[in-house]
Amino acid sequence: MADPTPPTFLAATLLHHSTPPPATRPHVTLTFAQSLDAKIAGAQGRQLILSGKQSMVMTHWLRTLHDAILVGINTALNDDPQLNEPPHHLPRPVVVDARLRLPVTCKLLRNFQGKTGRRPWVLCAASLNSAFLERKSALEAAGARVIEIPLQSDEQPEGRLPVPSILHGLRERGVNSLMVEGGARIIASFLAESVVDALIVTVAPVLVGEAGVGYQYPTSLSENGDVLPKFKAIHTETLGQDTVMSFASIPW
Amino acid sequence: MADPTPPTFLAATLLHHSTPPPATRPHVTLTFAQSLDAKIAGAQGRQLILSGKQSMVMTHWLRTLHDAILVGINTALNDDPQLNEPPHHLPRPVVVDARLRLPVTCKLLRNFQGKTGRRPWVLCAASLNSAFLERKSALEAAGARVIEIPLQSDEQPEGRLPVPSILHGLRERGVNSLMVEGGARIIASFLAESVVDALIVTVAPVLVGEAGVGYQYPTSLSENGDVLPKFKAIHTETLGQDTVMSFASIPW
Repeated sequence: MADPTPPTFLAATLLHHSTPPPATRPHVTLTFAQSLDAKIAGAQGRQLILSGKQSMVMTHWLRTLHDAILVGINTALNDDPQLNEPPHHLPRPVVVDARLRLPVTCKLLRNFQGKTGRRPWVLCAASLNSAFLERKSALEAAGARVIEIPLQSDEQPEGRLPVPSILHGLRERGVNSLMVEGGARIIASFLAESVVDALIVTVAPVLVGEAGVGYQYPTSLSENGDVLPKFKAIHTETLGQDTVMSFASIPW
Repeated sequence: MADPTPPTFLAATLLHHSTPPPATRPHVTLTFAQSLDAKIAGAQGRQLILSGKQSMVMTHWLRTLHDAILVGINTALNDDPQLNEPPHHLPRPVVVDARLRLPVTCKLLRNFQGKTGRRPWVLCAASLNSAFLERKSALEAAGARVIEIPLQSDEQPEGRLPVPSILHGLRERGVNSLMVEGGARIIASFLAESVVDALIVTVAPVLVGEAGVGYQYPTSLSENGDVLPKFKAIHTETLGQDTVMSFASIPW
């Protein structure tokens, strides 16, 4: 694999390495591929291969710039991703999986067992439920490091971990730069918490339509109803038929 | 204004002029600008200036390649567009306005009165309602040509004109190429009827969020749930910070 060096990477690198990470969380890069109509998955969350080869190579290299790669459990279940890019630096795979639904047969664990991937971390909510404890033991036996993330309050929606606690837990454990890849629920919660430092989106020239899965982005409006941007466009480039748009967060 | 000649235009021109239009409708180019998250307007349909100068010039030139430019009444009310590009060929402005809500003070009529725009055509449903007939007379007195479009059946949703009848009515009156610009309801109905020959979308590197107005695209799925594309990507190019993606319809 040739190392690409378009400005996207320079931008991402600068964003991450020019300043130390905040004390309470890693630097966060949110990156995903979407269709023209802003869908990231097909009907019922089916995986869609949206991006072409050139932007895939870009994403793979972007991963190697980060300490860890985070995905949600629905992406882990639907896509069974590997998230490893040998022979480059291997980032830590992290799965947000409040109720421990990750199967012990997933590729992340098989890659770790076969020494082609790093030990995956699985972030969950604490529970004394006996079926949960059984799944926890099975995941640990298969090689996962299971990390319990404290809930902030009883108001946390069922089955969801609070984003600030996730980030705090990762920073405490030495993750200074995190690449967040999806899916829809993860994207929406990271955007809603305003913890995304760099946003890099690959747009494929494809229309998926209303049956596809989109992501929510919380709109900020001014007093007279205008949309207030939370991100500043840094760079747009065409890679094959895809377009990669890079943004930096606008500080509050 | 310098005439730009990027491949988008070549593609659009070829699509339109290499074959005669179908017998029952004009060639249709659907074109609009959207945010990264596929919103075409702000909260409550407020106009958003999404595209930069370079892609605006592209859109303006694209207009001059068509016999007529069509917008829906909500776009006419929210944006009060002019749709004229002197000193180039002036396309016919067409407003889809089932109940004749277009104000006689709109820029389209003022431009016509001031000889800087062509006579606008206003497409409506026939009605014997006296307030409707009054509005019709006022629009005609202000210079509009009001054209009644036959409804196909009683099942047509209230206040909407059937797309095939709109297109048939325009073709009968000598419109061989039509550029459709929006808004959301028009985009969704033209896509749903599969009458779009060329689709040209400008994507601005901006996130609008869930309060914005999107468009609906009817998904086609294969028997095993895969998304079936209805458009083929022809060309992607970066203009300033925007990206212009051009598509051709895939024949059934």
